[in-house]
Amino acid sequence: MDKYRLRFNNEFNKYIQLYEHIKSLIDKNQIEDGEKLPSIRELADFLKLNKVTIINAYKKLQVEGYANQKIGSGTYAKRRDSIRGFKKSYSITFKKLSSGRLGDVIDFTGETTSADFFPVSDLKAVLNDVLDRDGAEALIYQDVLGYEKLRERINEKFWDNKLDFDDILVVSGAQQGIDIVSKALINVNDNIIVEKPTYSGALSVFKSRKANIFEVPIEKDGVDLEALKKILKKNKVKCFYFMSYFQNPSTVSYSDSKKKELLKLAEEHDFYIIEDDYLSELIYDENTKYSSMKSYDKNDRVIYIKSFSKIFLPGIRIGYLVCPRIFKDSVQNSKVNTDISTSSLMQRALEMYMEREYWVEHIKLLNVKYKERYEFMKTEIQKKLNERVEFNPPGGGLHFYLKLSDSIQINSIELFYKLREKGILITPGVMFYKHSKEGERYFKIGFSQTDSDKIRKGIEIISSVLSEEAEVYGIPNN
Amino acid sequence: MDKYRLRFNNEFNKYIQLYEHIKSLIDKNQIEDGEKLPSIRELADFLKLNKVTIINAYKKLQVEGYANQKIGSGTYAKRRDSIRGFKKSYSITFKKLSSGRLGDVIDFTGETTSADFFPVSDLKAVLNDVLDRDGAEALIYQDVLGYEKLRERINEKFWDNKLDFDDILVVSGAQQGIDIVSKALINVNDNIIVEKPTYSGALSVFKSRKANIFEVPIEKDGVDLEALKKILKKNKVKCFYFMSYFQNPSTVSYSDSKKKELLKLAEEHDFYIIEDDYLSELIYDENTKYSSMKSYDKNDRVIYIKSFSKIFLPGIRIGYLVCPRIFKDSVQNSKVNTDISTSSLMQRALEMYMEREYWVEHIKLLNVKYKERYEFMKTEIQKKLNERVEFNPPGGGLHFYLKLSDSIQINSIELFYKLREKGILITPGVMFYKHSKEGERYFKIGFSQTDSDKIRKGIEIISSVLSEEAEVYGIPNN
Repeated sequence: MDKYRLRFNNEFNKYIQLYEHIKSLIDKNQIEDGEKLPSIRELADFLKLNKVTIINAYKKLQVEGYANQKIGSGTYAKRRDSIRGFKKSYSITFKKLSSGRLGDVIDFTGETTSADFFPVSDLKAVLNDVLDRDGAEALIYQDVLGYEKLRERINEKFWDNKLDFDDILVVSGAQQGIDIVSKALINVNDNIIVEKPTYSGALSVFKSRKANIFEVPIEKDGVDLEALKKILKKNKVKCFYFMSYFQNPSTVSYSDSKKKELLKLAEEHDFYIIEDDYLSELIYDENTKYSSMKSYDKNDRVIYIKSFSKIFLPGIRIGYLVCPRIFKDSVQNSKVNTDISTSSLMQRALEMYMEREYWVEHIKLLNVKYKERYEFMKTEIQKKLNERVEFNPPGGGLHFYLKLSDSIQINSIELFYKLREKGILITPGVMFYKHSKEGERYFKIGFSQTDSDKIRKGIEIISSVLSEEAEVYGIPNN
Repeated sequence: MDKYRLRFNNEFNKYIQLYEHIKSLIDKNQIEDGEKLPSIRELADFLKLNKVTIINAYKKLQVEGYANQKIGSGTYAKRRDSIRGFKKSYSITFKKLSSGRLGDVIDFTGETTSADFFPVSDLKAVLNDVLDRDGAEALIYQDVLGYEKLRERINEKFWDNKLDFDDILVVSGAQQGIDIVSKALINVNDNIIVEKPTYSGALSVFKSRKANIFEVPIEKDGVDLEALKKILKKNKVKCFYFMSYFQNPSTVSYSDSKKKELLKLAEEHDFYIIEDDYLSELIYDENTKYSSMKSYDKNDRVIYIKSFSKIFLPGIRIGYLVCPRIFKDSVQNSKVNTDISTSSLMQRALEMYMEREYWVEHIKLLNVKYKERYEFMKTEIQKKLNERVEFNPPGGGLHFYLKLSDSIQINSIELFYKLREKGILITPGVMFYKHSKEGERYFKIGFSQTDSDKIRKGIEIISSVLSEEAEVYGIPNN
C-alpha cells in the first residue's frame, strides 16, 4: 500500500496527479500487470481523499488503457503494450518538436515541403490583392462546394476543363477530404480495403467509422490484385483507399495497367475507389509519367482527393475532391457538418495564385531542390546503410521506406528510441499497419525538412547505431 | 411506358438525365407512390440504352430516396415525404443564394454578422504584419493544440488566465468543434440529450455518430429539468449538448441556477456537458449578465465550444474548445484525424488582432448596430404580426423564433414556399427537431443580413401572406 503514497500539489487537479502516479508505478513495474488496485474506499482512506477523486483517477487509467474494471470485483492494472506506449511517446515527441521544445534535431519525419521554399511574398501579394479587390466579400461564407472561380480554375489548370466544375468540392486539406468522404460513405461494419502498409491518418479515420478493414499487400507496381480479388470474391466491399504515386509509406507508384485493372474490378464488384493523390507533383524519374486513376475513370467509380497543403502553399489548408455524382449530395452534407466551409479568403487567394501561375514556378523550384536531396539521400543510404537495410528508390516524393536487414536484431521502435536520444527522428513502420507489429522491421525517413548536411549527418548516425546492433550479434561492421 | 421516353442531351451523363426524368415523374405524381418501375431490360430496350445506364439511374433513385429495390421483384417508386423534400429544396435555395443566383432577396436566414461590418482593413493589417514578422514560419503546421500564443491570448482575454492554456484546443470553427468532440466521445447507441428544439448542425453530427438522441423541451430559462431527470433515471447518458445564450433557434438564455443545477446533475449521473457558446457577445438587455457554464465547472464536466467566425472575423474560420482533461487526448487525436490542424497564418493573425484589441471596438460596433436592428424588428413584429404569431423577445443574439397562431392554417414549410416566391427567405422550425414534424408551427427570422428597410419590407410581406391565410379561414385581416 505504501507505494501509493504521494505528495499532492494543491495547485493542480488531484485526480490527475493520482492517475500520473499510478501510471508511472505501472510503467516501472512497481505495480504488476494484472495486479489488483486498492479498493476505492481503501485508497480514499489511505490518501485522505474524497472517493470521487479515486473514482476519477481509476476512470482515467481505464480510458488510457492502464487498468481494467471487473464489475463486482475491482480495478486491475494493465501494462500498456509496447506499441501503444510507443505511439503515445511518438505523439508526445512531435508535440515537443512542433512547439520547439526539442531543440536542434534532424527531423526525418517531415511530410510537408520545407518552409525554406515557401513563396511568402507571393502569398502576401495575393492576399492583399484579394482583400483590395473583394473587400468584405472575401470574408463571407461561400457556396458549400467552395468558391466558384477556384473550382473553375482547378478544372482549367489540372483537368483541362474536362470535369464539370460543380463536381469539385473544396476541402480544408486532404485529411479532411478523407474524413468527410468516410462520413458520407462508410458505416459501421462496412468492408473497406486498404493497401498494406498505408497512411496512418487514413487508417485512423476508417477505424473511427468502425469499418471492417482488409489490408492487401503492396507490390512494386501497386496492390496485389490476386489477394484483392480473393477478398472481393467473399465479401461485399464498399471502397478501396489507395495512393497512386509514391505511396505513403511504401513509396510505390501504380502502373497504368494496374489502375485500369482496378477500375474494371470496381465496376464488376460494385465498389468505389478513393484515390489520394498526395504528392504526384514531385516526380524525379523521367520515365515516370503522371496519370491519375480518376483520368481513366469512365464509370464514375473514383473519389479523387488532392491536397494543396503538402506542396503548394502549406499554411493555406486547402485541398479538393472530385466525387462520383451518386455521392455528391451526401459528401456535401458531410462537409457542412464537418466545418460548414473552408476559409473564403484563402480560397480566393489560392485562385489568384493559380491564375497568376505563381505555382508553376514554385513547383519547378521544388522539383529541382528536392531532386537534389533525393539523389543525395539515395546515395548516402546506398553507401552507408548498404548491408543494414533494403529499399527501392521511388523516383519521386519526399521519403524512403527502408526494411531492416535480417542481421539487425532490434526492431524499428527500439531504433526510434535509440536515434531520438541522438537527436534523430524517424518514423517506425508500426504506424502504417492495422496490426502494428507487422511494421516492426520497417522505418521511413524523409528529406523534406533536411538539407544535405543534415542528411549526411543523420544517415551516419543511423549507420553507426545499426552497426552497433549488428556487431552485438557478431556481424562485422562495414 | 410512354411517359419514360425522353430526349437525351449527349453532352451530359445519360444516367443522370434518366434519373432526373423519373424523379420529376414521381414528384408530379405521374409515377405513383409504390408503382413498379419497368424492369432494367425493358427500359433499356425501350430507350435504346445500355443496361448499366438504367442500373445506375435506379441506384441513384434509391440513394436519393425515390425508389426501393425489392430483391427478386424489381424497383418501386417512392414519394419522398414532404419534409425531406423540403429540406432538399431548402438546401438548393441556399446554394443558389450563396452563389448569387437568387438575385435581390430579403434573407432572414443569415446566421453570421453582416459583411457590412467586417473589419477588412484591420484584418489586412494583421495579415501583413504577421507575414512580415514571421515569414515562412507563419505557414508551417502548428502544435496540434494550435498556435501557443493564441491559446495564451484566449486565456488572458476571455478567461482571466484561469485556464491552463494547454487545455485550450484551437479548431476551425464551432461546427468542427462539435464534430471532433462527437468523434472523440460519442459511439454507436450512446445516449445523448439535446434541447428541443436544437441547432440542426449539431443534430446532424449526432445522428451521423448513430447516437441515441433524447430531446428535452426548452423552457423560458433553459431546458426542462424534470423531463431531463426522468431520462437520467432510466438511462446511462453520455452527454448533454446545449447553447447557454440565445439558444438557436428558441432564443432562450439559461438562468444561473439552471446552469448550476445541470452541473450537479452531470456529477451525480456521470455525464458530460457540451456548452456551445455561440453568440454571447451580443447582449442588448442590460439585465442579462454573461457567465458561461464552464466558468462554474468545478468538476471538469463541461466541454466548452466557442466560435470566432460568427462574430469576430467571419472569414477566418477559427474557434476553440476547452475540454475536460479526461478527454483531452482523444479530442486532440480526433482533431488530427479531422484536418491535421487549423490554418497557421489565420491563427497568428487572430492572435495579433486580439493583442491589439481591435476586437473590442468591433464588438462594440456590432452591439450598437444589431441592437438597433433588434429593437426595430421586435417592434415591427409586434405591430404587424401581432395576431399571427407568438414569441418571446430574446434580449440579444441575431434572430427571433416565432410560433404561428392557431388561426393560421398553413404550416411553416408552406409559408417558406409562399415567401420564397415573393423573395423572402425564412427558416421553418422543422430543421430543429429530431422529428421534423414537431417544428411545423414555428419559424425563425434573423436580422443579421437585413437592414431596417429590408426588415420593414420583409415583415410586411410576411404579414400579408399570413393575413391571406387567416382570411381564407374566416378570420378577419387586421
